[in-house]
Amino acid sequence: MPRTLRLTVAYDGSAFAGWQLQSGQRTVQGVLEEALYPFEGQRVVVHASGRTDAGVHAAGQVVSFMLASTIEPETLQRALNARLPDDVRVMAAEVAPDRFNARFDAWRKTYRYTVLNGAVVPPHLRHYVWHIAPPLDVDAMNRAAAALVGEHDFVAFQAAGGEVTSTRRSIVISAVSSAPLPDVHQASLVTYEVTGSGFLRHMVRNIVGLLADVGLQRRPITDLAEVLASRDRSHGSPTAPPQGLTLWQVAYK
Amino acid sequence: MPRTLRLTVAYDGSAFAGWQLQSGQRTVQGVLEEALYPFEGQRVVVHASGRTDAGVHAAGQVVSFMLASTIEPETLQRALNARLPDDVRVMAAEVAPDRFNARFDAWRKTYRYTVLNGAVVPPHLRHYVWHIAPPLDVDAMNRAAAALVGEHDFVAFQAAGGEVTSTRRSIVISAVSSAPLPDVHQASLVTYEVTGSGFLRHMVRNIVGLLADVGLQRRPITDLAEVLASRDRSHGSPTAPPQGLTLWQVAYK
Repeated sequence: MPRTLRLTVAYDGSAFAGWQLQSGQRTVQGVLEEALYPFEGQRVVVHASGRTDAGVHAAGQVVSFMLASTIEPETLQRALNARLPDDVRVMAAEVAPDRFNARFDAWRKTYRYTVLNGAVVPPHLRHYVWHIAPPLDVDAMNRAAAALVGEHDFVAFQAAGGEVTSTRRSIVISAVSSAPLPDVHQASLVTYEVTGSGFLRHMVRNIVGLLADVGLQRRPITDLAEVLASRDRSHGSPTAPPQGLTLWQVAYK
Repeated sequence: MPRTLRLTVAYDGSAFAGWQLQSGQRTVQGVLEEALYPFEGQRVVVHASGRTDAGVHAAGQVVSFMLASTIEPETLQRALNARLPDDVRVMAAEVAPDRFNARFDAWRKTYRYTVLNGAVVPPHLRHYVWHIAPPLDVDAMNRAAAALVGEHDFVAFQAAGGEVTSTRRSIVISAVSSAPLPDVHQASLVTYEVTGSGFLRHMVRNIVGLLADVGLQRRPITDLAEVLASRDRSHGSPTAPPQGLTLWQVAYK
């Protein structure tokens, strides 16, 4: 009987054309399936909790697949990490219930989006932040973000090309906080954390684009609620760039 | 009259063959001098507080040079950052006293060395840490590190090939601390911070190699003082790898 395995996977999205397999492109799904191949001597199809776009990172993406091999999960984890490039790591591996599917069983997802607020981006952060030089009003951003908590139609924050039947989603955490970097960097990190039942295409980056305009006092705090209620993407702000975004954690019931 | 300028420079050392100009190699000095060339129409020779080795990073390297151009320092900073590759950033620029020399006038330097202590290295940290999987005894490391404070002959921690007249150096801070990473990463960062009048070739990395052996309980806490007193490099531990090391800050009187 093949077992269902569940991996927690972290990746640096900088050098990937996103999660999803695409012919001729380096994708996270592609390198994971390639690393799994020798364990079965054939392609192992892996399912993630959700796709991430090109340049987007993951700290705790969850992946499931069927495996006929009787290898111990810890052994598989070590063997995969030895085979994988160092911008993808298997952080944990376990046997899951037979019908477990990382995508369909996902209960809540958490994303974090990080802005470097300061004159110059310290080089070690350049692939992991959106650079905004003028000082951000973090309190205003946080108050604006709170308007998203609850169940709403998020179609105003969906990119064109989203292919979903319903655009209603439930958000349980939506908050902005700031933490100073060490003095030598002369900057702070402003982080948006959002946890919800699921997310539409570019939803987090579209929210952050609008939050940044609130933080820069280009738009009033009430505009997050206004745009949400308008159900019209054209009322929003430009999409924030991908490199600030990390799929942080996925929870299962 | 040419002025003396002083830059604070940060870099990600991953893709550099170190600070110092070397023909046919990508070096930090090389890309900085190349970026400065158009301001004078000729080579501008830059002096750093000290060389860093291949793979070693800087948060606050200090650089000085003479410039005939009357450009404002802030304008120069912006223009350099526009010309430089994104793994080198000018964090600050100012006019310095005429005889200022970043190397000879350096009063104290601070280095930080970071160890990822946990089973797996989160991908976004892979270029900035030394990976040690077994749990480290941070308290033992910190007690061992304290033995270096004061003025000593550090020849036992000098790599072969060091070209200095005296191997005596004065250390004012030498401490190890630990901070947990966010839960999702299941690891902590163990950081060695050292401030002193100057450092011999590979000195910090040789100290960290020995501290790691203390943290892993392969060597007693007293071995740091013993090796120091032996004045014999062969009594030490293997050199820690370069990517965990950052030249943090340089102070001038």
